[in-house]
Amino acid sequence: MIFPESVTIVEVGPRDGFQMEKTFIETDTKIGLINALIGTGIKRIEATSFISARAIAQLRDAAEVVKRMVRGKDIFVEALVPNPKGAEGAAEAGVDGMRIFLSASEAHNRKNVNRSIQESLSGFKEILRIAGGKVPVAADIAVAFGCPFEGDIPPDRLLRIADSLIELGIRSITLGDTTGMATPPIVRKTCELLVKNHPHLELGLHFHNTRGIGLVNVYEALHLGLTIFESAVGGLGGCPFAPGATGNVCTEDMVYLFHELGIQTGINLTELLKVARRVEQVVGRVLPGQVMKAGGRLDLHEFGIC
Amino acid sequence: MIFPESVTIVEVGPRDGFQMEKTFIETDTKIGLINALIGTGIKRIEATSFISARAIAQLRDAAEVVKRMVRGKDIFVEALVPNPKGAEGAAEAGVDGMRIFLSASEAHNRKNVNRSIQESLSGFKEILRIAGGKVPVAADIAVAFGCPFEGDIPPDRLLRIADSLIELGIRSITLGDTTGMATPPIVRKTCELLVKNHPHLELGLHFHNTRGIGLVNVYEALHLGLTIFESAVGGLGGCPFAPGATGNVCTEDMVYLFHELGIQTGINLTELLKVARRVEQVVGRVLPGQVMKAGGRLDLHEFGIC
Repeated sequence: MIFPESVTIVEVGPRDGFQMEKTFIETDTKIGLINALIGTGIKRIEATSFISARAIAQLRDAAEVVKRMVRGKDIFVEALVPNPKGAEGAAEAGVDGMRIFLSASEAHNRKNVNRSIQESLSGFKEILRIAGGKVPVAADIAVAFGCPFEGDIPPDRLLRIADSLIELGIRSITLGDTTGMATPPIVRKTCELLVKNHPHLELGLHFHNTRGIGLVNVYEALHLGLTIFESAVGGLGGCPFAPGATGNVCTEDMVYLFHELGIQTGINLTELLKVARRVEQVVGRVLPGQVMKAGGRLDLHEFGIC
Repeated sequence: MIFPESVTIVEVGPRDGFQMEKTFIETDTKIGLINALIGTGIKRIEATSFISARAIAQLRDAAEVVKRMVRGKDIFVEALVPNPKGAEGAAEAGVDGMRIFLSASEAHNRKNVNRSIQESLSGFKEILRIAGGKVPVAADIAVAFGCPFEGDIPPDRLLRIADSLIELGIRSITLGDTTGMATPPIVRKTCELLVKNHPHLELGLHFHNTRGIGLVNVYEALHLGLTIFESAVGGLGGCPFAPGATGNVCTEDMVYLFHELGIQTGINLTELLKVARRVEQVVGRVLPGQVMKAGGRLDLHEFGIC
């Protein structure tokens, strides 16, 4: 079994996680956590979304977060831009990358942004014009491995959406498992098709642990040679649609797995566990992350008798 | 990738799970849940432990559980027997199989049963004599993939313990990941060594999800062709040694994974999810199982917008 030597982790907690939090997290607190995450060695981070305060009040400080957080030439700060206005805000704030999004199913796209997939694709042109070739624009495809309204997503349909995005000039696409419907066989079939048709595409994966197999899907993707994984510190956010259900794969649990497989992440796990515990305190509830509770594998201790 | 066509699931919740519950679960309730588990298609179940009521009051009804639960010639009912007295009780109650246990590390064995590994091995002879060749005796090796007191377990040491058990007449060994220290490389190295040296040994695996990768270890073991997996309904029990940490791999989440891989378990997942929710009600708290919260993969619903 030959795994990639190293992987890139895209931390999405500050956007995908914080946006689910009902109580406003102070801007200084957000920036403190983002900087702490960067301090652990995370180099690519989705810091916020330039969405209207009416839609997501929690992220109304998007511009301030981007302007005041730690920056650096080896740190890539991305923001979600739902529309041209968001793209203008993101460009003005000086993000390193913008992310647009659409869904792999018509039903989900309609419910999420009240548009057809074709309308979403057309709308991206104006965002790309605003980005002007200076700010790279990546695309997220939601419900890529299954839609809670429509069921299975035919891989061919996903390929056609990817084709359209690439025609628009997109060079980086992330497949989102929005409600945790990915399984290893679906991951394999879908990713192999995209890689075969677009070998130069930067293909990221964003799994959820909704049905307990988020990291199994990550592990399967590693077998396919894929190297870009999104996750959220603590397992924050990510659309847990049922009480007690989890959402995003947890960054530190995924980093733990990578390190145990001998795969480099550039991240200091011990420091990341500290940040995860800080995040838990900030949101005021127990998060799904496991390693932050149990500690590292060889953190020897005096328990373990049952 | 070629997986086994089918696997055997050994449900350990009624023993390994219930024993951790502080409030006594009425015998009728236990039997009702065990029968419901068997009703889902589970054919091998660790129903209880013939341990002294002083040590684990929760399982003081071991004989009654075994005598009154649903039995059948295709159902294999096992019980843990910590000592000859337990073996006598188990034989008298009419179990289909006894399970003895020891640890892969001296420190853990000492803390768990106050004996050296050698003393444990010697003590098994009397249990085997009581079983008398009529009741098969299987062995569980705890902390097989890492010990919280000693750290890594050299695979050679594990092999020597397996050698000794096999010399005693044991034909079935389960490796327990008592505090969740297994990783795919360790699983591979350990299991390959045992299989190579003892190709006719029945080798079971009992993983914990303490660090979030329990099912990744299961998935790795499938790649090795292994087919016997222990788990607990709902993710009950299993020595969660830190607040919020999880223990045993959850049966229904594992069954979900197997079915999605096209591997037969003989278990009706929909029915198993119902039993898991009943177990959650009985123990009165949220259990770690994910699929029982999210539902099956294609249980379409009206949520999923974030």
